[in-house]
Amino acid sequence: MSGGLRQPPTLYGVIDIGGTKIVVGLATAREIVASTRISTEAVRGPDDIVHRMAAAMREVMESQGVAGTPLTGVGLSVPGPLDVAAGVVHFTGNLHWAHYPVAQKLREALGGVSVFIDDDANCAGIGEAYFGAGQGFSDQCYLTISTGIGGAVIVRRQVYRGSQDVAGEVGHMTVIADGPPCTCGNLGCLEAVASGTAIASRGRQLLVQEQSATLASLAGGDPEAVRAELVFEAAKRGDPASLTVLRQTAMYLGIGIANLVQTLNPQAVILGGGVMRTPELILPAIVQETARHLFKIQRDHLVIKAGVLGDRAGLWGALQLVKNALGSEDLNETE
Amino acid sequence: MSGGLRQPPTLYGVIDIGGTKIVVGLATAREIVASTRISTEAVRGPDDIVHRMAAAMREVMESQGVAGTPLTGVGLSVPGPLDVAAGVVHFTGNLHWAHYPVAQKLREALGGVSVFIDDDANCAGIGEAYFGAGQGFSDQCYLTISTGIGGAVIVRRQVYRGSQDVAGEVGHMTVIADGPPCTCGNLGCLEAVASGTAIASRGRQLLVQEQSATLASLAGGDPEAVRAELVFEAAKRGDPASLTVLRQTAMYLGIGIANLVQTLNPQAVILGGGVMRTPELILPAIVQETARHLFKIQRDHLVIKAGVLGDRAGLWGALQLVKNALGSEDLNETE
Repeated sequence: MSGGLRQPPTLYGVIDIGGTKIVVGLATAREIVASTRISTEAVRGPDDIVHRMAAAMREVMESQGVAGTPLTGVGLSVPGPLDVAAGVVHFTGNLHWAHYPVAQKLREALGGVSVFIDDDANCAGIGEAYFGAGQGFSDQCYLTISTGIGGAVIVRRQVYRGSQDVAGEVGHMTVIADGPPCTCGNLGCLEAVASGTAIASRGRQLLVQEQSATLASLAGGDPEAVRAELVFEAAKRGDPASLTVLRQTAMYLGIGIANLVQTLNPQAVILGGGVMRTPELILPAIVQETARHLFKIQRDHLVIKAGVLGDRAGLWGALQLVKNALGSEDLNETE
Repeated sequence: MSGGLRQPPTLYGVIDIGGTKIVVGLATAREIVASTRISTEAVRGPDDIVHRMAAAMREVMESQGVAGTPLTGVGLSVPGPLDVAAGVVHFTGNLHWAHYPVAQKLREALGGVSVFIDDDANCAGIGEAYFGAGQGFSDQCYLTISTGIGGAVIVRRQVYRGSQDVAGEVGHMTVIADGPPCTCGNLGCLEAVASGTAIASRGRQLLVQEQSATLASLAGGDPEAVRAELVFEAAKRGDPASLTVLRQTAMYLGIGIANLVQTLNPQAVILGGGVMRTPELILPAIVQETARHLFKIQRDHLVIKAGVLGDRAGLWGALQLVKNALGSEDLNETE
């Protein structure tokens, strides 16, 4: 836990549920003042998760000397797809939830406070838009490139969710007709060819084909030990085969991003997620590959940037989510 | 000219500029009451076009007994890319315009009436949305599949134009990495593989390879005489090779539409343009191919329909454009 808080202004709860860990935090309208993390332990079921999140929230509040102070609201980032208005998660592969009314359950566990949910990519996107690399752009797209690829479409400073809250599924754009299978069931999705998982899989092929002594050595000779991080590490050391994998990944990302730009003509595209942890190794190629597909008028005005909030983007987004939901952007703040 | 008008209610001018013809019409808030068409004759230059449009407008008004009645505003559909707020067309391949301030020029030619412009695909999309197949859907996408492929993104009943008024360029989504060249300079654009031009080009290949006696006979044995309409006609007569061309076209359109749906999760996708003139020959395949790439939640809620306004969609859109611009949707109407 970190941060400090002298007098209680408007207080929000902010929570980001991931597949392995959950971050539970306390925020004012402008900053996250303290947070703690618990392990997800999805096998114990959603009700158990809800009760442990509520307990962690009470703990964080106690640590800040505001135990018992009513929260103005709670913002919750969860793996989607979900129904934002109903506060229900349709399903999540990671957590094995099915039509789980997480907002209502958490509201009950926290003694009646309003809980607002959105999916993790939307939260991370709105986090970067309001508190990170996307500040100052009213219309932008966000991609999180990690195990999978998610996205958020931001129109006039608001997340655009479409008709069933499943807009922004940029990772499931088809970029290769009848290409490699994707976890979603479709073929040739951007996620299937340009995610961290895809990078790792190409890295493994390099070992099978004995194309990279550097990567083989980093992986201890075991193809199964190859992760995207190792491919990045090998590329950093100048390994040509690993650099080619990143270049190829950038090529597909360029198609996906350009398709977004053709559709939405945003001011900026912000790229987050684990694959962007060392942006210098891949961002220049992504920018170049994207530009290759664009008209001059689009190219000249488009900003492509790496996110700056890292794995805290979702937590910041959860804060903006609850602020937007309560229309409290202009509330008086005391800090 | 057609239609009749007894007493002058709020009157709008509506104009749709195409590569070969220009339709100039007079409308109330609810209907286009009269129209006439003039030939574009782009070689005579933009000022000449403006003056002939103004003359045609005066003629239409005279024919309706409302000569001299002030128009509330004029909506103008023009080939694209343009600056909506400035009323300037950046350039149009068809008309050879460059940074032409068409709104101002037409305003002057019409004695000071306000003129609002948008590109042809946006106009057709908003026309279908308000007066055609898209009625009742607040969030929808429109594709016009013709010589090229254009599009419109409609968010909460308004055209979404992005940051440089070039959103909705669906035809320039890349659907085949390093695919066939597109007129825009990119490779593998949807337009390059699924437009009327692409259908005609595949039809020509059928003649070269002697794969379709039906199409050859329709084209008088001349590959250069093959147009998309002939491929449709051959398909209608059951020609397997032409049916395959349409199926392949539908496959690419399915990718493009599914990519739109993944990004925007609209309630409906409306398809217009010349290629949709006989929707029964291609729409079922488009629906099927699109569904192939979608999650169940997207598939189950998506409506894909052919437009119903034909080549009048842009004119209807020009009407909605000026109504929206003047905030006059709820004006009292006398008809």
